[in-house]
Amino acid sequence: MKFERKDLLGLEELSRGEIEFILETAGSFVEISERPIKKVPVLRGLTVVNLFSEPSTRTRISFELAEKRLSADTVNITASSSSVVKGETLKDTAKNIEAMNIDMLVVRHNAPGAPHYLADVLHCPVINAGDGPHEHPTQALLDLLTVKQKRGTFEGLNVTIIGDILHSRVARSDIWGFTKLGAAVTVCGPPTLIPPDIESTGVTVSYDLEEVIPRSDILMLLRIQTERLKECFFPSIREYSDFFGLDSAKLERAKPDVLIMHPGPLNRGVEITPEVADGPRSVILDQVRYGLAVRMAVLYLLSGGELKSEDSD
Amino acid sequence: MKFERKDLLGLEELSRGEIEFILETAGSFVEISERPIKKVPVLRGLTVVNLFSEPSTRTRISFELAEKRLSADTVNITASSSSVVKGETLKDTAKNIEAMNIDMLVVRHNAPGAPHYLADVLHCPVINAGDGPHEHPTQALLDLLTVKQKRGTFEGLNVTIIGDILHSRVARSDIWGFTKLGAAVTVCGPPTLIPPDIESTGVTVSYDLEEVIPRSDILMLLRIQTERLKECFFPSIREYSDFFGLDSAKLERAKPDVLIMHPGPLNRGVEITPEVADGPRSVILDQVRYGLAVRMAVLYLLSGGELKSEDSD
Amino acid sequence: MKFERKDLLGLEELSRGEIEFILETAGSFVEISERPIKKVPVLRGLTVVNLFSEPSTRTRISFELAEKRLSADTVNITASSSSVVKGETLKDTAKNIEAMNIDMLVVRHNAPGAPHYLADVLHCPVINAGDGPHEHPTQALLDLLTVKQKRGTFEGLNVTIIGDILHSRVARSDIWGFTKLGAAVTVCGPPTLIPPDIESTGVTVSYDLEEVIPRSDILMLLRIQTERLKECFFPSIREYSDFFGLDSAKLERAKPDVLIMHPGPLNRGVEITPEVADGPRSVILDQVRYGLAVRMAVLYLLSGGELKSEDSD
Repeated sequence: MKFERKDLLGLEELSRGEIEFILETAGSFVEISERPIKKVPVLRGLTVVNLFSEPSTRTRISFELAEKRLSADTVNITASSSSVVKGETLKDTAKNIEAMNIDMLVVRHNAPGAPHYLADVLHCPVINAGDGPHEHPTQALLDLLTVKQKRGTFEGLNVTIIGDILHSRVARSDIWGFTKLGAAVTVCGPPTLIPPDIESTGVTVSYDLEEVIPRSDILMLLRIQTERLKECFFPSIREYSDFFGLDSAKLERAKPDVLIMHPGPLNRGVEITPEVADGPRSVILDQVRYGLAVRMAVLYLLSGGELKSEDSD
Repeated sequence: MKFERKDLLGLEELSRGEIEFILETAGSFVEISERPIKKVPVLRGLTVVNLFSEPSTRTRISFELAEKRLSADTVNITASSSSVVKGETLKDTAKNIEAMNIDMLVVRHNAPGAPHYLADVLHCPVINAGDGPHEHPTQALLDLLTVKQKRGTFEGLNVTIIGDILHSRVARSDIWGFTKLGAAVTVCGPPTLIPPDIESTGVTVSYDLEEVIPRSDILMLLRIQTERLKECFFPSIREYSDFFGLDSAKLERAKPDVLIMHPGPLNRGVEITPEVADGPRSVILDQVRYGLAVRMAVLYLLSGGELKSEDSD
Repeated sequence: MKFERKDLLGLEELSRGEIEFILETAGSFVEISERPIKKVPVLRGLTVVNLFSEPSTRTRISFELAEKRLSADTVNITASSSSVVKGETLKDTAKNIEAMNIDMLVVRHNAPGAPHYLADVLHCPVINAGDGPHEHPTQALLDLLTVKQKRGTFEGLNVTIIGDILHSRVARSDIWGFTKLGAAVTVCGPPTLIPPDIESTGVTVSYDLEEVIPRSDILMLLRIQTERLKECFFPSIREYSDFFGLDSAKLERAKPDVLIMHPGPLNRGVEITPEVADGPRSVILDQVRYGLAVRMAVLYLLSGGELKSEDSD
């Protein structure tokens, strides 16, 4: 079997079969990441450009490590130094990158749809590393891989995503991913942070975390951006924590095998307490670990066809 | 034949034969950039340092891609993080780099002559990636390669460079290059942006774009920096565009096979309209493409002698 | 013999034998740095992360060059772009890095002890590249290597460290290193810049540079940070230079074979005059050169055990 798409732009357009194929491929890369020498030659001789027009560390590093473990050469373009990003239109950025004849592009951009536009113009594969509040497909794939590795199946699972659903590309991609694979998704947060039309995506809405905890198999906390406080989405950090922060007391009513997830970076004491983040039910660091495997898998699949002869190297 | 210089500092000091030799070498690298695996081992084991004391994206990326396609290791030093650049004299920068025993240095610096000073002190080859308003030799070489690939010859061509000639290192290097290879160069712009002594370099001056268009084979637009407006070099962006911006109306009077060039990044709607930039006569993206080949050629030639045994690898 | 530690955190905890073993290993890397092809495959397939939460150029570049000469892949994380550094606790930084399963970490951090904490949590080797005013072990090791290469022995040498001892991690690491190897260390500077308890480390204190110069074999000048002036540690740059800056006049009273050292970057005209910095007794550039060899040695030794089969490659 072969992955037939040129790009990875979002989970909305992927079929269940395609998502499962990526997860299966990622599973084999989990093993490679545990070896003393983690480097394999599948992208040898190819150059991957990481174009990040928004600051990011963990996603950029995860991609860069994944690329290097696949033996690719990497070039980083970041917003602060980038006339490609700031001084010209996205159209010119795209055309210039095309003219340089690079082999693959990983792009984070604050404009929703920017990776889709680039994918349209460029002949090389494009991977969306987050486009504004729209999608963050590799994050959702690593969340899915974490659940798959811990639970084996998605059927019958209740996944609850808690916090700022409105501004979260992680929530959006996770909703597509988990519902396609057969899980039931609930989103939970203050009404100001839940998009009004969210139920059309097939999720259940709750404004009461205590009520949803007992029936959840996965509790996925989202990072609260303190900027949102200034924008009056909620009255205070303390009130947010009281109602929607996960602490040991609330966790007592959860299923014994609940998984606690968070895309990071953590606001310890805001959306999650240290005891819960570091506790036995937390799989937050597994998410980071599986993130590398998922990104290796995506890079591998998108470069696929061209690299067969190199593979046997 | 072998390139006999240690450094590439500017086109002023190169002979016609040397320029032609670089362009010929670059021609063979154009083909390599079209292959599925673009990497060749000619700089394997060598470390190239890219020292950029001015922000730059496209030139830095073009050099970094060229270095990686030649299998060099690269280390980037940028102004924002650089005590080497800011906290010490250029003399100390040079001596420290020398002590680290690197193999090649690519340098962009706001002080004209800085690369020449470094070349003098360092034993390794130095490539000028732009020194203030002085020279930008690899940009001029890629402009020359673009014209050579499209037209085959320089003899009898009329090259018109339009815009801020006064502050442009690209204009300066292009003037040296095109006149040495036998083309006739005209510079065109508002009188405030034309250096008073420019005719001593062998160019013709015009203040009237409409007048020079019909006899031009090449129209090279330069980027207008909006800072120049504050410095009162011209009254308004709109007036500049009316007189010196290239649009479809002005282009109607051009030769049918005129080439439209621009070093980028484009100010769409200022010095060039989108229709012209994206139109059939534009070779702007060819310039970007050939830029990589030119930089690979320069890196290859300057490393030359030492690497013969590696070449057959 | 084998280096038995997992990490290099400081010279305080190293035995004389361990320091001598590192210096001996570094000696063999000095030769490699003089070859036309300086790259050796001892870290091939491994990824080293350089996490710098304080700006640095020369130390970062020296490490990055050392890593690349050993064929490691490198990933740079710098403060300005780094949510790993700023947006989360050091604990979370550590756990995230651990989850990504990197092979080695080089860390500069403004908090004393941060590398020790990371070393405790991470399974991979950690190298301290400077932790606040605490230690900078590779700088001290390169100072030691420079003296060893120039003098052969440490026994009976009088080493004088001059300037801002209070805030200097270089001074602290140098004191541990030189005294352990048998040299006598004097620290010299204005009383405000000498820590009150410094004599407990075995050094002699002097407030009079002219008095200590005649009996010194090594004069190590430290960089004066102009910020210290605002904090009222000394009355003026000029007064500092008069009393503690090294110039040709003061140097006349020195031993004929005295070595002048400085960790860089130089404040020419403040703690050292250009004539002295560039004069025949200065070994400042040897320090830079040996720095690369020391860092290669440390990376090699800490990766040691696992890499034997690669070594014969």
